[in-house]
Amino acid sequence: MCFIVNRLKPALAYTLCLQTTGHLRKVPAHMGPGLLTSKQPLESVIIRPYCARMELGKGPFFRQLFESVSSTYTYLLADTESREAVLIDPVLETVDRDLKLVEELGFNLKVAVNTHCHADHITGTGQLKNRLFGMKSAISKHSGASADILLSEGDKISFGKHYLTVRETPGHTDGCVTLVTGDQSMAFTGDTLLIRGCGRTDFQQGCSRRLYESVHQKIFTLPPQCLVFPAHDYKGQTASTVGEERRFNPRLTKSVEEFVDIMTNLNLPKPAKIGISDSRPSAAILLR
Amino acid sequence: MCFIVNRLKPALAYTLCLQTTGHLRKVPAHMGPGLLTSKQPLESVIIRPYCARMELGKGPFFRQLFESVSSTYTYLLADTESREAVLIDPVLETVDRDLKLVEELGFNLKVAVNTHCHADHITGTGQLKNRLFGMKSAISKHSGASADILLSEGDKISFGKHYLTVRETPGHTDGCVTLVTGDQSMAFTGDTLLIRGCGRTDFQQGCSRRLYESVHQKIFTLPPQCLVFPAHDYKGQTASTVGEERRFNPRLTKSVEEFVDIMTNLNLPKPAKIGISDSRPSAAILLR
Repeated sequence: MCFIVNRLKPALAYTLCLQTTGHLRKVPAHMGPGLLTSKQPLESVIIRPYCARMELGKGPFFRQLFESVSSTYTYLLADTESREAVLIDPVLETVDRDLKLVEELGFNLKVAVNTHCHADHITGTGQLKNRLFGMKSAISKHSGASADILLSEGDKISFGKHYLTVRETPGHTDGCVTLVTGDQSMAFTGDTLLIRGCGRTDFQQGCSRRLYESVHQKIFTLPPQCLVFPAHDYKGQTASTVGEERRFNPRLTKSVEEFVDIMTNLNLPKPAKIGISDSRPSAAILLR
Repeated sequence: MCFIVNRLKPALAYTLCLQTTGHLRKVPAHMGPGLLTSKQPLESVIIRPYCARMELGKGPFFRQLFESVSSTYTYLLADTESREAVLIDPVLETVDRDLKLVEELGFNLKVAVNTHCHADHITGTGQLKNRLFGMKSAISKHSGASADILLSEGDKISFGKHYLTVRETPGHTDGCVTLVTGDQSMAFTGDTLLIRGCGRTDFQQGCSRRLYESVHQKIFTLPPQCLVFPAHDYKGQTASTVGEERRFNPRLTKSVEEFVDIMTNLNLPKPAKIGISDSRPSAAILLR
């Protein structure tokens, strides 16, 4: 199965149907000294689900990765049969690491998707596109950024027999999305919902009332056991669940009025890369 | 079910059979502003497996936590029925965070177990013992450290219906152990096996030949899909598998002679807390 954005746009879907081989040729030689010469599939990885208890072959491969300067999480998901993979929120500084892992595991990285335009780090998407022939970039159509795939509510990003569904969750920015696995076992919430926190709403198109509604209507309605994987964490937390956040999130358990008041009075410093984001409209240049 | 070290020591096993309630009373009030008043179990957490695909109730609760100064991973595992929990390699600086999470989730933390005596950070075990009545400390009997439970090869640390089996894996230090879940789906390898690396062997009782044998005899013999969770990572990697490390670990895929040569020529600086470790024999004072 190839990547398809599953909407009523058959022509677009067709154009996104990619080749499944040969697109890793541009990975530089220095990335795998002595380790990347063998191209045969790694059996132990092919059948490896995230949890060994998961029924073999049913669950997607999953790996969480971290960039420490901006405290950003990148997520690699893949179908272990077709080898098709998706990277969520890659960071420029860790492109080498991520490409090496993709190459080692024998995956074909089809799409790098950003949950939104980041103001605290530069996405690795442009660099990945330069080095992986055929890889597509994806971001919300409301982000203002350019990308190969502009995502809307309900779109599905397929990788093999698995897919991520797009839920538009504006508030931190207009173009924020949450990506949910087909079985609703994992939600990649970007900066909309953080672990015991949420993204700021005081710059770009931030709107605390919209963020509150997004979380309550699009994330808190997911099953309570759904794992929450955010774009950032600053306290060494790696995951949460919808159930936990519904109960313990110190901001989003409040009323909307209390929430707006909290967000209005955060008085945070400017994010690290806001200057780059400002001078390059919505980081569009970084995506293409 | 209570905590039992499953060896042929019925008397010891009896003494480790702990109360299952009331031992969180010493958690300070500041840890849960407005959030910790409710003591009833959180349904969504109780039935939450690590992966939503896991059969409900069968898998243990699992959470990976990170301390950024020493790049240390701490792991919380729990039985979602009995609420009994184990913390692996807690760090002093993140005790508040970890206790807050344990309290929120309604777990009874029974044991804090260290995979070895750490030279790069101070364990949080002593602080936890001060604040959690009845919690026990555990470490290898070969570590030279004092603790409530001194672990040997084959010991089982039980929490509810789950348990961790102790595999002695010396080499980084004499008292290094790897803790393996009962179903061999997860291995907590301490500093013995890191992701695409391993612990240094040039101080304390380090011996590169012993480390090589430990990894090959006690870790690489686990199922290839077994997830590897180390005590540290310095590149933002969060997990690996036995299969991946058997194939891609740049040191441990070499011959033992090549490995010894690599380890002999690392020329690393002293670890951050080696002075504390030296002046307090094997960090014993930190455990009791």
